[in-house]
Amino acid sequence: MSTAGKVIRCKAAVLWRPGAPMNIEEIEVAPPKAKEVRVKMVASGICGTDIKSMESEELAQFCPIIMGHEGTGIVESVGEGVSTVKAGDKVIILCLPQCGECNTCLNSKNNICKEVRLSGTHQTSEGNSRITCKGKIVYQYIATGTFSEYIVIKEISVAKIDEGALLEKVCIIGCGFATGFGAAINSAKVTPGSTCAVFGLGGVGLSVIIGCKAAGAARIIAVDINKDKFAKAKTVGATECIDPRDFEKPIQKVLFDMLNGGADFCFEVTGNPETVATALASCHKDHGVCVIVGSIASWVQINISSQLFFSGRILKGSVLGGWKTKDEIPKLVSDCMMKKFNLDPLITHTLTLDKVNEAIQLMKNGQW
Amino acid sequence: MSTAGKVIRCKAAVLWRPGAPMNIEEIEVAPPKAKEVRVKMVASGICGTDIKSMESEELAQFCPIIMGHEGTGIVESVGEGVSTVKAGDKVIILCLPQCGECNTCLNSKNNICKEVRLSGTHQTSEGNSRITCKGKIVYQYIATGTFSEYIVIKEISVAKIDEGALLEKVCIIGCGFATGFGAAINSAKVTPGSTCAVFGLGGVGLSVIIGCKAAGAARIIAVDINKDKFAKAKTVGATECIDPRDFEKPIQKVLFDMLNGGADFCFEVTGNPETVATALASCHKDHGVCVIVGSIASWVQINISSQLFFSGRILKGSVLGGWKTKDEIPKLVSDCMMKKFNLDPLITHTLTLDKVNEAIQLMKNGQW
Repeated sequence: MSTAGKVIRCKAAVLWRPGAPMNIEEIEVAPPKAKEVRVKMVASGICGTDIKSMESEELAQFCPIIMGHEGTGIVESVGEGVSTVKAGDKVIILCLPQCGECNTCLNSKNNICKEVRLSGTHQTSEGNSRITCKGKIVYQYIATGTFSEYIVIKEISVAKIDEGALLEKVCIIGCGFATGFGAAINSAKVTPGSTCAVFGLGGVGLSVIIGCKAAGAARIIAVDINKDKFAKAKTVGATECIDPRDFEKPIQKVLFDMLNGGADFCFEVTGNPETVATALASCHKDHGVCVIVGSIASWVQINISSQLFFSGRILKGSVLGGWKTKDEIPKLVSDCMMKKFNLDPLITHTLTLDKVNEAIQLMKNGQW
Repeated sequence: MSTAGKVIRCKAAVLWRPGAPMNIEEIEVAPPKAKEVRVKMVASGICGTDIKSMESEELAQFCPIIMGHEGTGIVESVGEGVSTVKAGDKVIILCLPQCGECNTCLNSKNNICKEVRLSGTHQTSEGNSRITCKGKIVYQYIATGTFSEYIVIKEISVAKIDEGALLEKVCIIGCGFATGFGAAINSAKVTPGSTCAVFGLGGVGLSVIIGCKAAGAARIIAVDINKDKFAKAKTVGATECIDPRDFEKPIQKVLFDMLNGGADFCFEVTGNPETVATALASCHKDHGVCVIVGSIASWVQINISSQLFFSGRILKGSVLGGWKTKDEIPKLVSDCMMKKFNLDPLITHTLTLDKVNEAIQLMKNGQW
């Protein structure tokens, strides 16, 4: 019996207040309205941004909320006027939409569609989430909220992917992998034979390494204060791994010596503002490019010595790896299925939705 | 009678201690040694960097010193092994040398030759200045020291220019004009039809405007808190001039509104670290490029909201406009003589060497 046009009752992990564990709750998911899509979720990744936001009092105004913003599923039904996906399609969720009509979407240099909601809340086309729980509206984190059996999202926030795609694997392409891989490929434009340094070896940092390797970097130095991450970094392409605490001199001096003047490309993937200055200082002074990949709260100031800029270093940011999401994320999925890169090392545990708090804890402990 | 091989007694403006006026003194200029050139100076410009340094206690360790680092002259004699200039050649002084042999000179992406001395002192090839006064060695500021009738500099710090060049005019190409013009042409790579904002309308800022105009910018907004500078800014190419104090909202919001989201290219030419953050914020959030042109002391921290980077802005520095000096500055001189750009608005007063303190005061008062 088709569920189209009807409210679907299902489970979701609902966060009632910041800092609390999520509760598995029965929710009601209304049918999609015009230009909206209802998706039966199959798999979600967990991103560091979920964890940071869940613990931030800033999120209180949007609770109850369903977290999660990288995932894959199958279209259950579509609202009026939806043309790019249909019921039964395998899809990937786009936490950064691509409306195709705003100045940014029409400007090839940038990917931050004007329709994006980065404020931690979800407003659908009519300003309301389609999800309720115990009589309350439940928000969807970053306009997605993938820790749910069903969600309703805008058509611009979902893209059809290969029918043969393994949803449990490619779900992480939606945010973490695309962010890191694209930071190397699109934002830094890593060149063949170059030297790279990657600060922070979470899933995004590993994806940066995969990107650097794909771009033909000659040396990729992985930097972290957790040595447990080194083996995996080497698996995905790091040529050397170093722990700043093993050296008496600052890490930028270590890299200066290792790389004959500094790295051609440096990536800050820890989300720590101090590390931005360190990563910039670790760039080759003549031409080094430093890309800020880690998510840093908007009110945080970065303090950088003016001297670092004078000789030729460049500092820039990167959001979701610079990809035009609806056009390009499905291509990354196809590339993955064609084994152009291997996501397996990035997937350490597979848990069911009811174990979501345990999954969060595993990530916080760095046990991935 | 040739002076070659003999000590030349002549006049120079000598700074005996930071913060004091310069004294016109009789100095002794020894003959050039190997790979050195003795130049009879004809004209010098005054750069804001001279003034900042003259007032800094940092300079005390290098006093007595001859200031000035942009100038033109005629080669008096050359030391052993000098092949690129000869006695009688018209030359321009290069405050940034081009040795042609270091990694930087051989790397097309950068112009900061390893032989540069930016520390405010001059060490010739043997570690000593060739100039003395009252029995003391006199240093030459930034390895040049152009406020002198004669100087000895390294061959890598001087370039032959067109025989027809007007030395009194093209002297400012050596630093101020090259710095500003190149910041637009080389560092920002201003594109035809683009929008630009220039913060600070000294000689370098005006040169940035000339560069933006030469690159085909559609709109060039000149920003300064001294309205007296607006007329000249318009003469050299500014399409609009604004004083931040005329607005209630911050200047970045004013520019956001004027330029439909911000400027494609912003230039910080005040040397003020706070203005770096303002100029970056004034860039178009999707793709704006901010170039730091103004000289900021190396120990000064720049504080920037991390948010400014996430959407696509780029921050970079520029030293001497990115020109490979010995190769490219003479071409700028030729371009000037062919009237590809007009330096006349940048030259406001012409004074003799004995009036150097008066010239400094005119510049400090903004009366140029």
